Amino acid sequence: MGKTVETFENITYNELQEGDTASFGRTLTEDELVLFAAVSGDVNPVHLDPEFAAGTPFKERIAHGMWSGSLISAALATVMPGPGSVYLEQSLNFRRPVKLNDTLTVTLTVLRKDPKDRVLLKCEVHNQDGKMVVTGEAKVIAPSEKQVLEKPRLPKITIDRG
Amino acid sequence: MGKTVETFENITYNELQEGDTASFGRTLTEDELVLFAAVSGDVNPVHLDPEFAAGTPFKERIAHGMWSGSLISAALATVMPGPGSVYLEQSLNFRRPVKLNDTLTVTLTVLRKDPKDRVLLKCEVHNQDGKMVVTGEAKVIAPSEKQVLEKPRLPKITIDRG
Repeated sequence: MGKTVETFENITYNELQEGDTASFGRTLTEDELVLFAAVSGDVNPVHLDPEFAAGTPFKERIAHGMWSGSLISAALATVMPGPGSVYLEQSLNFRRPVKLNDTLTVTLTVLRKDPKDRVLLKCEVHNQDGKMVVTGEAKVIAPSEKQVLEKPRLPKITIDRG
Repeated sequence: MGKTVETFENITYNELQEGDTASFGRTLTEDELVLFAAVSGDVNPVHLDPEFAAGTPFKERIAHGMWSGSLISAALATVMPGPGSVYLEQSLNFRRPVKLNDTLTVTLTVLRKDPKDRVLLKCEVHNQDGKMVVTGEAKVIAPSEKQVLEKPRLPKITIDRG
């Protein structure tokens, strides 16, 4: 049996239309809390320590706000417009906390095509209850040429909780 | 010999003054590229595959733009104002690519204190050559009460490159 090769394909500036939408989803597990703390350096215990988090207004561990931001960037980089995009600007409004096992869906909508391949996109992140957790806008340079890429396989990451 | 316990202390709304600055630094290694791809889902090969990246305008692997955003959020959450802050808004302008072994420094500056503990901060990220890579502004609710916290120790994370 052959290995399945996953590919992803971009949407060029010429193909994009105002009103086009695309989505991208991820679930928050303890792994994301640890990995995001490690990669950003934000080791605030509200994300890491269940006992500490129980004494905060959130009552339990919550995601780093910028984890939702990273999902928006992943949606832009891998789905719409996808590979070959250049990220120029992002605004983020953090509306609600994200809790363990919440499944977030990023929805991107093309708001406007500007000269020089610039595209403005509305970015909304909802949880599994349909509540808005983050909103914002992104400005990118959309790719001018079609690309179909193999998805790189990530090395195995092991978290040793001891 | 006792274990060293690292602590971090917040800066309350009353303590913050317009013009106050604080900084936070990190270096981009291959680990950050893999971990950020894993935690965000952005597996674009420009961040992961040296051969692919060589054929892009960047000529080599670059950081996920939102990794710089995550450093800004870490600076806000752990340094100024630090623990107890609530993240409301962030704007990001991505100015230059970040390459392997670049050391980034986030500099935060208090631009304005608003009613209801709101604080507006200027966020600048420079590389080791003093070039601006990201700029933006953050709005947070600063903590009203002093907190001195132990820094949680992260579990050991192993990346198996096989």
